[in-house]
Amino acid sequence: MRHILIIGIGAGNPEHMTVQAIGALNRADIVLIPQKGAEKAELADLRREICARYLTNPRTRLVPFDLPQRDAARADYRGGVDDWHAAIAATYRALLKTHLAEGGTAALLVWGDPSLYDSTLRIVALLRESADLAIDHTVIPGIASPQALAASFRMPLNTIGGAVHITTGRRLAQEGFPDNADTALVMLDGDLSFRHLAGDAFDIFWSAYLGMADETVISGRLADVAAQIAATRADLRRRKGWIMDIYLLRKRQGVT
Amino acid sequence: MRHILIIGIGAGNPEHMTVQAIGALNRADIVLIPQKGAEKAELADLRREICARYLTNPRTRLVPFDLPQRDAARADYRGGVDDWHAAIAATYRALLKTHLAEGGTAALLVWGDPSLYDSTLRIVALLRESADLAIDHTVIPGIASPQALAASFRMPLNTIGGAVHITTGRRLAQEGFPDNADTALVMLDGDLSFRHLAGDAFDIFWSAYLGMADETVISGRLADVAAQIAATRADLRRRKGWIMDIYLLRKRQGVT
Repeated sequence: MRHILIIGIGAGNPEHMTVQAIGALNRADIVLIPQKGAEKAELADLRREICARYLTNPRTRLVPFDLPQRDAARADYRGGVDDWHAAIAATYRALLKTHLAEGGTAALLVWGDPSLYDSTLRIVALLRESADLAIDHTVIPGIASPQALAASFRMPLNTIGGAVHITTGRRLAQEGFPDNADTALVMLDGDLSFRHLAGDAFDIFWSAYLGMADETVISGRLADVAAQIAATRADLRRRKGWIMDIYLLRKRQGVT
Repeated sequence: MRHILIIGIGAGNPEHMTVQAIGALNRADIVLIPQKGAEKAELADLRREICARYLTNPRTRLVPFDLPQRDAARADYRGGVDDWHAAIAATYRALLKTHLAEGGTAALLVWGDPSLYDSTLRIVALLRESADLAIDHTVIPGIASPQALAASFRMPLNTIGGAVHITTGRRLAQEGFPDNADTALVMLDGDLSFRHLAGDAFDIFWSAYLGMADETVISGRLADVAAQIAATRADLRRRKGWIMDIYLLRKRQGVT
C-alpha cells in the first residue's frame, strides 16, 4: 500500500498553512511539485517556499515533474478534460512507482482547499481505480479562497440567515444572479461574467492574487467599478503573465 | 486606538490553526474567552486548549467573561437577535476598557471561519460604530466546516462545473432543494430539514462534532440513512448536552 496526502495549502499566503498540513507535509517521503510552464512559475515557487519554510523532516524529498497540459484545441471540452485527468493520473502512477517504496507516503500540495473547483480528488480517485498499485489517500483541508476573500474585506459571506451561492463564471453568464441567495461567490471566471448583470443592483468585492504579495482588491457598486476591474485585471494579467481572481456579488438592499 | 483580532480557529480540530492565526494569537495582549454555560463547556475548553498549545507570548492574558444569553422567549426573533448582539458589543466594550490599554490588542477566537454564519463580525462592527473608543480590527480566516466536512468524506464540494449552495436548515425547509445547484451544504439545522426532501433523489453526508474526538459521520442515500441520522443526532445531543452538525446533500444522478 502506498499513501497519498492531498494537502490544502491555503489561498496564496504561506501562513495559511495549518498545523495539520505542516504535520502531514513532514510525514511524506516525497512531495510532488508540478511544473506547469512559465506562466505559473510563481505558483511552483510558492509550493517550494512552503516546503522550505515548513519541512523539517530531512528524509522528505521534493520530486519536481512536468504536469501534462490540457489540449485546449479539442472541440469536445469535457472529453478533453477527462483525457487530461487520465494523463495526470498516469503521470502520478509512474512517479509513485519510480520514487516511492511500498508503504511510502507522497504529498500533493493543493492551492486553497482540495474540495472547491480543484481536480486533484478526482484524479486520485482515477488513479486508485486504474492503477496496478494499492493506494490509499487522506485529505487535509486548507483555507479556501472564499474565506480569504471575506477576511481581506473583513465581511461575512452570508447576510443574516441568507444563503451563499458558490458558482462559476460560466454559470453566472448563463443563469444570471441566483434567485435564492443574496450573495454569489464567483470562481473560475475568465470572461468577466459580471458584465451581464444590472450594475446598480449589486455590490462587487473583487480580488486577484489573494494572500500573495501582489494581492489587489477593488470593491464598490458594480456599475461604478466594473470597468476599473476589467482594466485592472487585463493589466495585471499582461504584466504577470497569469491571473487568479475571485469575486463576491451581493444584492444591494432596496434594489431589485 | 485599540485593535481587535478576529481569529478563525478552525472546525473543531486544534490542528486546524494556521500559522497566521498562531502569529495573531501571540500578538494579542488579551484573549477574550466566553463562558456560555455548561452545555458549551467543551467549546470553552477547546479555546483554552488552543491557547495552551499555541500561546508562547508570556505577556498575553486570558480574560474569561460571561457571554450575554439570547432571550429565546422573545416573539420578535430578529429583534431579539439585534438586542443580543448589542448586549455582546456592550460587554466587549466594557472588557476592552477594563483590560486593555490604549494601543493594545485583543483577540476573539471564532469557531470555523468568521465569514460563515457567525455573528462576531457584525458585533465588532456595532462596537466600532457605538463605542466611545477608537477601535480597528483585522480578520484571520480559518478552516470552515464545509471544508472540514469535505476533507472528512474525501469528496469535492462541487460536481464538475457545478454550483454549491450554502444554506440554513430553515431555508431548506421553506424553499426545498435549490434548483440551480447539484450540491447543498446545510448549516444551523436544528430541525432535520432534510426530512422534507424526496429520500431517493439525494445522497447525504452528515457529520456532528467535526474535527473533534467525538466526530461522528453518516452518509448514504437519504432514504436509507435519514432515520439513522435523526436517531444518532438525538442520542448524541442527549448524552453530550449539545450538538454541532452540518451536512451536504447531493442530487443523485439519473434521479430527478
